[in-house]
Order: sequence, then structure tokens, then C-alpha cells
Amino acid sequence: MKSGEHRKRAICLLSGGLDSTTCLAIARSQGFDCYCLAFDYGQRHTIELAAAARVAASLKAKELKVIALDLRAFGGSALTSDIEVPKDRDEEQMSGSIPVTYVPARNTIFLSFALAYAEVLRAWDIFIGVNAIDYSGYPDCRPEFIRAFENMANLATKAGVEGLTELVIHTPLMRMTKADIVRKAADLDVDLSLTHSCYDPDSGGVPCGRCDACILREKGFAEAGIPDPARRKSESVEK
Amino acid sequence: MKSGEHRKRAICLLSGGLDSTTCLAIARSQGFDCYCLAFDYGQRHTIELAAAARVAASLKAKELKVIALDLRAFGGSALTSDIEVPKDRDEEQMSGSIPVTYVPARNTIFLSFALAYAEVLRAWDIFIGVNAIDYSGYPDCRPEFIRAFENMANLATKAGVEGLTELVIHTPLMRMTKADIVRKAADLDVDLSLTHSCYDPDSGGVPCGRCDACILREKGFAEAGIPDPARRKSESVEK
Repeated sequence: MKSGEHRKRAICLLSGGLDSTTCLAIARSQGFDCYCLAFDYGQRHTIELAAAARVAASLKAKELKVIALDLRAFGGSALTSDIEVPKDRDEEQMSGSIPVTYVPARNTIFLSFALAYAEVLRAWDIFIGVNAIDYSGYPDCRPEFIRAFENMANLATKAGVEGLTELVIHTPLMRMTKADIVRKAADLDVDLSLTHSCYDPDSGGVPCGRCDACILREKGFAEAGIPDPARRKSESVEK
Repeated sequence: MKSGEHRKRAICLLSGGLDSTTCLAIARSQGFDCYCLAFDYGQRHTIELAAAARVAASLKAKELKVIALDLRAFGGSALTSDIEVPKDRDEEQMSGSIPVTYVPARNTIFLSFALAYAEVLRAWDIFIGVNAIDYSGYPDCRPEFIRAFENMANLATKAGVEGLTELVIHTPLMRMTKADIVRKAADLDVDLSLTHSCYDPDSGGVPCGRCDACILREKGFAEAGIPDPARRKSESVEK
């Protein structure tokens, strides 16, 4: 065994938002050396990639790989094409149907790259910050999707064929509310001022406060009774 | 229903080799309008993309999308890094273990993109030319992998959640020998002189005749009793 190979390695999907940042902090708190993957996928809010880099450095990730791939080739989402990002939706609207910010097969594609990275690094743990409680109704955030991906992944790889080990997809946020996530991040001393959640490409780094991502984030901080440090910082910039 | 929506649409993964070309011809023979996906994934043998374009035109595909993504970021394969492409391996060597030409999670990644494309086009059929008989021992060519991916895909998408329809991954070559594939292509009048199978990046468009892909192809044509038109063409170029 080479020096260092005894340490546990995990692949962590990181967008630089509240959820993926807290997920990375949880992986680290469990003793994993974290190898982060972010995607430059043609999203209009590319500002989140800068947040991912700040977060990876702050949480001492071993590596941050940014994979360029162009999901705009397919279109079909407000996050990658000219469809307007919806604003001011209430909870009923958010839970009622799959919104236009859904990017077709995005988590399937992201997890597939995580699988490739895991196989090359001989890592058997992938962390993804999906959440089935306070979420926007995306099909690829549900636990049954994650378990089906895990099952497929274990048939897709050398390790699976050789029966060497079992790949596990960790979803520590799955059953948490946004308030739980904010509290967990606070417990782990995560600097949430580094994170970026807003979907609006025109907000210039200042959260719009009106898209689904902003509304869910605000609700989480309010319910946890903790002020949002990113919000306070951007407000002081505005003044 | 908009004009044309009654026609069946299929997504066909196309590398420009013998298998994916025959698979596309089979999809067309079953009455599908074919939307092809090829990948510029950092493979050293990029010449196959030119073959994919020739094949798509010849078989009257509705569209050929070439997705750029950089699997070199992960390394780990002779097809995307400086590891030498193995030559002159016999059948026992090919079936004995997973070779260095295996690209980690490649078919998982390719099928994930096909799923995104399918969801945007509202197509429910994906064709992939994987083969469990005369193959190089890749784990992500096995029928159990394909069924697990299909199961996952049906949980990943809007259509799956809404119970609208079932996505099917077609693998018409799964149980065919290379000779069967050559005969099937001949039956369907496919111009196999357009295809390219060789893995060797230094062959300059002329098949090396010694890598796994060339050896399997040659065996297929020999057993089918049909001369390889690509080989004859390249030999006449050499003279």
C-alpha cells in the first residue's frame, strides 16, 4: 500500500451552494479526504463556480476538478437557456410540479462523472447534497433515484465486476429540512458567507431573493433562527 | 399533437465503428427517426468522429450531435492518456481481464447524455451497440448493467415521475457475434467502408490490424465470409 492509501477518499459533488457545501463539511467530519467535482455546464449563473472554489479551499478539499460540458446543447431548462427563471413562487407552487429550472438528467450526468473520478482514484464513497424535503420537485433528487444509481454504478465498474468493494452514494441531507441543514453547517463551523444559491444570472452576485433557491434558503435560515451571512455581506455591499 | 410528433424518435449512440453503425441501421429498419449522439471525449483516435459523421449522413439520421467533454481530466485509460494501446492479444487475453483501453464509467456517462437528449426530445427509446459476446471485457457492456441503467433512468426523469411512459434501452447486438453483426449490416445494405474501428491513434486512418478492435473486426468479417470494405479501401490507399 502506498503512503496515504489508508486514508478514506470521497468524491464530493460541489456547486458552491448551501446544500453541497454542508454535504462536503459532513464528509470531512466523517474523516474523508475529499475530492470535489464542480461542473461548468453552461449554467447562466456561473458565479457559483467561484463559490465552489472558495468553499473547497475553506473546507480543505484535496482537489477541486471543474468539468466543462455543454448541457446547452440540449436546452430545455431555465438554468441553461433563455427561459426566464421563475420568481416569487410559494411552497405549493414549488411542490406542485417540476419547474423549468430542472435540467434534464443533470444529476445522472453529474453522478456519472463522479463515478469515473471514483474509479480512477479507487474511492468508494460519493457524497451528493440532494434533499427530498425542501427541494424544488426535481425527480433526480429522490431517494429511489439515488439507490437505483448506486445499484447501476456497482455493475458499471471494474471494482463491481471484480467484487472488490461496494460503492456507496451518501446523501446525508436527504431527510433534513433547510433549517436542519443551516443548523448542521453552523455546528460544523462552516462559513456560509462563501456560498452562493441564487439562480438568477442577472443578479450580479447579489442574491435576487425571489427565485426558488433564494426563497428556500431564506426560509431555512429564518427557521433555524440564524442570520444568513451571505445576505448580510451582499447587503453591506449594496449600501 | 404537433405535426411529426406521431413518428417514433430514438436516440442512437454512434461512434462510427462497426457495432454502433449496425445498431443505428437496425433502429432505422424498425421505423425510428434517429437522433445520433457522438462524443469528443479526449479520445486519441478522434478519426472516429469523422466516421460517425459519414455514417449518420449515409443512414439518414435526423441529427448528429457531437458532445465535447474531457474524460482526459480523469485519465486511467489507454484511449485517453499516454498508456500504450495493447497489440496482438489473443482471445484468451481479451476475455481474461479488463484491458487498459477501458475508459472509466464511459458508457454510464454516454447513456446519461442520451437520457438528457431523450428527455428534451420526448423520445423514449435509446439504442446502444453494446455486445456481450465478442467484446473486450468492459463491465459497462453487460446486460445486467444495461437493465440497471434503464431502471435508474426511469426514476431520473420527468416522464418517469409523471408515469407518462417507459424509457427503453435497446441493445440489439447484445447476443450477436461479430460475424452476426457483419451479416446483419450486409442484410441492411450498410456501407461498412464508412466505418472506423481501430484504437491506434498513430495509424493515420489505416487500421493497424493489431489492436483488440481490429482483431475482433477482422475475425467477424472472416467468420461471416465477407471481405471488409474499409480494409480493402485502406489497402488500396497504401499501394
